[in-house]
Amino acid sequence: MTDYTPPKVWTWETPNGGEFASINRPIAGATHDKPLPVGKHPMQLYSLATPNGQKVTILLEELLALGHSGAEYDAWLIRINTGDQFGSGFVEVNPNSKIPALMDRSGPEPIRVFESGSILLHLAEKFGEFVPMTPGAARTECLNWLFWQMGSAPYVGGGFGHFYYYAPVKIQYAIDRFTMETKRQLDVLNRQLAEREYIAGDDYSIADIAIFPWYGGLVKFDSYSGSEFLSVHEYSHVQRWADTIAERPAVKRGRMVNRAFGELSEQLHERHDASDFDTKTQDKIDG
Amino acid sequence: MTDYTPPKVWTWETPNGGEFASINRPIAGATHDKPLPVGKHPMQLYSLATPNGQKVTILLEELLALGHSGAEYDAWLIRINTGDQFGSGFVEVNPNSKIPALMDRSGPEPIRVFESGSILLHLAEKFGEFVPMTPGAARTECLNWLFWQMGSAPYVGGGFGHFYYYAPVKIQYAIDRFTMETKRQLDVLNRQLAEREYIAGDDYSIADIAIFPWYGGLVKFDSYSGSEFLSVHEYSHVQRWADTIAERPAVKRGRMVNRAFGELSEQLHERHDASDFDTKTQDKIDG
Repeated sequence: MTDYTPPKVWTWETPNGGEFASINRPIAGATHDKPLPVGKHPMQLYSLATPNGQKVTILLEELLALGHSGAEYDAWLIRINTGDQFGSGFVEVNPNSKIPALMDRSGPEPIRVFESGSILLHLAEKFGEFVPMTPGAARTECLNWLFWQMGSAPYVGGGFGHFYYYAPVKIQYAIDRFTMETKRQLDVLNRQLAEREYIAGDDYSIADIAIFPWYGGLVKFDSYSGSEFLSVHEYSHVQRWADTIAERPAVKRGRMVNRAFGELSEQLHERHDASDFDTKTQDKIDG
Repeated sequence: MTDYTPPKVWTWETPNGGEFASINRPIAGATHDKPLPVGKHPMQLYSLATPNGQKVTILLEELLALGHSGAEYDAWLIRINTGDQFGSGFVEVNPNSKIPALMDRSGPEPIRVFESGSILLHLAEKFGEFVPMTPGAARTECLNWLFWQMGSAPYVGGGFGHFYYYAPVKIQYAIDRFTMETKRQLDVLNRQLAEREYIAGDDYSIADIAIFPWYGGLVKFDSYSGSEFLSVHEYSHVQRWADTIAERPAVKRGRMVNRAFGELSEQLHERHDASDFDTKTQDKIDG
């Protein structure tokens, strides 16, 4: 490995490896013209049930469970492995070409919302739920952890997950680096949850909704087939917390929406009505 | 590289390499008892002038420039290379052991604020500056880009910067991966800034303050000695924007605070009074 000397100027010569090689590019912008579909509800979501995608569908389902009909939504599937995120319509909603992306059409003019953390905060503030609205310690602590998740998870997904699971070559240096950081983050959460029911205190909030799909995924759903490697049993408080959250009906529904991979029984490619969960048929599963 | 097979269970055997090897750990929490100093001002900042640290000192200087005396602050130096972030006092403020960390002592009880994005939002909302306070498209667009920065920069700092500049071995796969992503992010910004004066529209905001130290650093200050490798001259709109921001007096001051590396003339290890910038002497430079 020490033989490699980078060139003076990097050039895009060959596709980088791994399962997602075809969707990684050194340039931004649309690759093709394709408008996005628009349904009947105030919220139009364009997403996929990755951890970042799940955050938003979980929050929308939680808001609907509380009776906020303004959170009714159409969830459209964005297949990132075939480049849907590079369509012109998607890029207009999110110039960063990443899921999830939301168009809030509840007001006189549509508002584009991108970055999962921004979508969570936008919706939480809109409905006054799952984030303390009064300035002070409780609001700030909730936002501390929301931002913590946004800045930390890239080391889990783009670091550990990539080099341990997806990358076509196993590079010990990179695996060690990102495994160490992933375990450190799990320990940060474990210590926090040793003394509190939820991440930011006594109340379930968008901090939990942001953190659960990533770190609950690691300790409970064997993300990246990494449970044994990461010794996730060490993080008992994270386990307890993840078990509690996973039992919430809105979380169960939210995890299914825009799911187009894994077990067929857990897939709901698109969601346009609450009854879609009940009437889910093989037709829908097959898309 | 293909010969490596990860073990069943990862163990912390040898320190990972690179300049920051000694500060990377797979566990969280304090390593030693050490209370934090507390000065006379409402805001107590514990930081270092990395890009994430600069965000906060730039915003505090901008707020002071507008006359908000409540933004007066003591900036204490946290030397991350010698483990100050693992002291018990620091961990109480930020259980994640990363700079910057802020104690807002302006109210009846102190509020801990950690994660640079959370600190920016806390301060901006407190003073009603640099973020649109009214719900709507302008506020949401500002927050979209604030969250974009938090989720994107780990690929620049923990990815490109680490593997291209800091890592003790040059691994082509990792350098290619993170260089591609860093260039894509620069192109996202370049397209956005081609049509707007500032990131989120006509007004300078915490989105700019968050993005400038990272991406302005790449195009203007040769972060990680990567200018030529990244062909930063391609991003002309980012250059134009960075030039404008770098000329702001508050930005010039903010970039100096808690700086304990680089050119001596640009270092101000601690800041306790506005006059510290004027009276900066070699004594202070030497800490």
